[in-house]
Amino acid sequence: MSNKKKVTPLSDLGEFGLINHLTGDISLKNKSSLRGVGDDAAVLDYQGKKIVVTTDLLVEGIHFNLIYSPLKHLGYKAIVVNLSDVYAMNAIPKQVTVSLAISGKFSLEAMDELYGGVKLACENYGVDLVGGDTTSSVTGLTISVTALGEVDKGKTVYRNTARVNDLICVSGNLGASYMGLQLLERERKLFEDSPQGIQPDLSGYEYLLSRQLKPEARKDIIQSLQEKDLVPHSMIDLSDGLSSDLMHICSQSGMGCRIFQDKIPIDPETVRAAEEMNIDAFVCALNGGEDYELLFTVPLDKHDDIQKISDVTMIGHVTDGDTGCKFVTDHGSEIELQAQGWNSLE
Amino acid sequence: MSNKKKVTPLSDLGEFGLINHLTGDISLKNKSSLRGVGDDAAVLDYQGKKIVVTTDLLVEGIHFNLIYSPLKHLGYKAIVVNLSDVYAMNAIPKQVTVSLAISGKFSLEAMDELYGGVKLACENYGVDLVGGDTTSSVTGLTISVTALGEVDKGKTVYRNTARVNDLICVSGNLGASYMGLQLLERERKLFEDSPQGIQPDLSGYEYLLSRQLKPEARKDIIQSLQEKDLVPHSMIDLSDGLSSDLMHICSQSGMGCRIFQDKIPIDPETVRAAEEMNIDAFVCALNGGEDYELLFTVPLDKHDDIQKISDVTMIGHVTDGDTGCKFVTDHGSEIELQAQGWNSLE
Repeated sequence: MSNKKKVTPLSDLGEFGLINHLTGDISLKNKSSLRGVGDDAAVLDYQGKKIVVTTDLLVEGIHFNLIYSPLKHLGYKAIVVNLSDVYAMNAIPKQVTVSLAISGKFSLEAMDELYGGVKLACENYGVDLVGGDTTSSVTGLTISVTALGEVDKGKTVYRNTARVNDLICVSGNLGASYMGLQLLERERKLFEDSPQGIQPDLSGYEYLLSRQLKPEARKDIIQSLQEKDLVPHSMIDLSDGLSSDLMHICSQSGMGCRIFQDKIPIDPETVRAAEEMNIDAFVCALNGGEDYELLFTVPLDKHDDIQKISDVTMIGHVTDGDTGCKFVTDHGSEIELQAQGWNSLE
Repeated sequence: MSNKKKVTPLSDLGEFGLINHLTGDISLKNKSSLRGVGDDAAVLDYQGKKIVVTTDLLVEGIHFNLIYSPLKHLGYKAIVVNLSDVYAMNAIPKQVTVSLAISGKFSLEAMDELYGGVKLACENYGVDLVGGDTTSSVTGLTISVTALGEVDKGKTVYRNTARVNDLICVSGNLGASYMGLQLLERERKLFEDSPQGIQPDLSGYEYLLSRQLKPEARKDIIQSLQEKDLVPHSMIDLSDGLSSDLMHICSQSGMGCRIFQDKIPIDPETVRAAEEMNIDAFVCALNGGEDYELLFTVPLDKHDDIQKISDVTMIGHVTDGDTGCKFVTDHGSEIELQAQGWNSLE
């Protein structure tokens, strides 16, 4: 942060003062949100609908680097990655809780930035911020988000219910977020290694950077499916990479799959950056993570319905369990998919 | 940890292997838990009841010190402090999610210890572990727990609904957890300062240590209230200390209060330790945190009902807002209560 900006130490407010400052302007929008921040717990009423609950932990130095993650984007992303999990159950997110562990280096203005992103995501996706916890950390920033959403009875979509001959569909394009991260890491190293501190030049790659730093969840796809009264057989959101996540669906469903190289959607900017960095764009698409696209399977007879949904690509089909999970190259050879997704414990 | 114990690096399992190892033996007990760990989100059905949601973040070096917190107790406590918030809404906890950020120093066996405590608490309180996230941290251990519970319509109890002349009631006794922490800190310093590494002697203070290291939530009090069909006007759980939490009730309700020194329940062991350490036991009871007792207010005419509930003490009454929050000493003098509760941001 620049020294010109105002810097108010958090200790000036204390814990309750900070919570009031950050959450004082929140008004609840959803009918299911009866009571939000300010009591021992939030109170919700889902009026007979089913509830989905998901949670994610973002840790500084593991999931993000404050050198290139603006705090506002980080707050936005922390919400979006959880909403993506809710959509992946075919549910509509309604509430989030946000807990922060912050070290002494953070000022009130920095917290305002972070919460600005949180609130913007809540607004864009129509969810209420109903609770959380704010505390100190010894070092670094940790963000824990829990998201809740609602789904009509009989409409929940799981991972383990893909069936033979289902069409495998994916929204958007793949590998862009991973390439965005590679670019950021390259520029960070250049900057750190140069004695003059050369400023990074990332122009021309704005799309890849936005996919990494400020991803969106595919609310629009869930809405399109609902408009067509189409309930997928199985669904997952792409956080670990296409290979890894598709293998989750297949192994949990006791199925195999065949996906085709020439069907994998990749953005031209991803291809260009991959070429520049001598990386195979298909490897990025298969194994890069954090796409936050939806991967789902539908019965074969829904082919025409799917074709009418914009930004969804059919990339292959579900096979029986004996076949394994295959990637069919442009030359027709079959390669066994491997789960090389991000593994934050290694 | 002793070198004799088996130490398996977490990288031997990877993230999914670890999750399977830790959660593979979980079976869901509650009717409202439709689907637990293993998909993008858990799926719940509260069948028309209201839902309460609360979340807490425990950070190594801030909320606990692994020098004297056994991992099993820590896992237990992380669950209990959240369940306490659910009970404080007059609700019954049904599900928890547990997210962990762990540094490389943790072995599989250490995780088993921590999860052993988590699972024991879930068993003791009848809640299902339905989800979470496991990731690396750069340093230290962070535990994020979210708890969900159910409450019948019309039975939710908030902080901001205390009324004039309500009796102020508190369960159990106060200040014991704080004294337990003082003892642990004293022994830690003695141990660190002694060249021979003198082993700590904490015998005779087992109760205080258990209150700090392995607290319980007052499920029994909520059950007793329900058996008597008694819905308090207001309720909070004591995490910041009696003064601070009572002032939350009063300020949010627009009320004042008067509590009496001779009514404050303090365990003899707390008194003995306080004397030994030259601390005023009443200061511990008023300002010490982490009691996880329930503080609630009921109409005056419920006096006899409350008297029949074991381990609940009436310590004063709610007054109108102009009176302020007063502590009446044994000598009859009135002292203004001050929120000197724990402030983890200072």
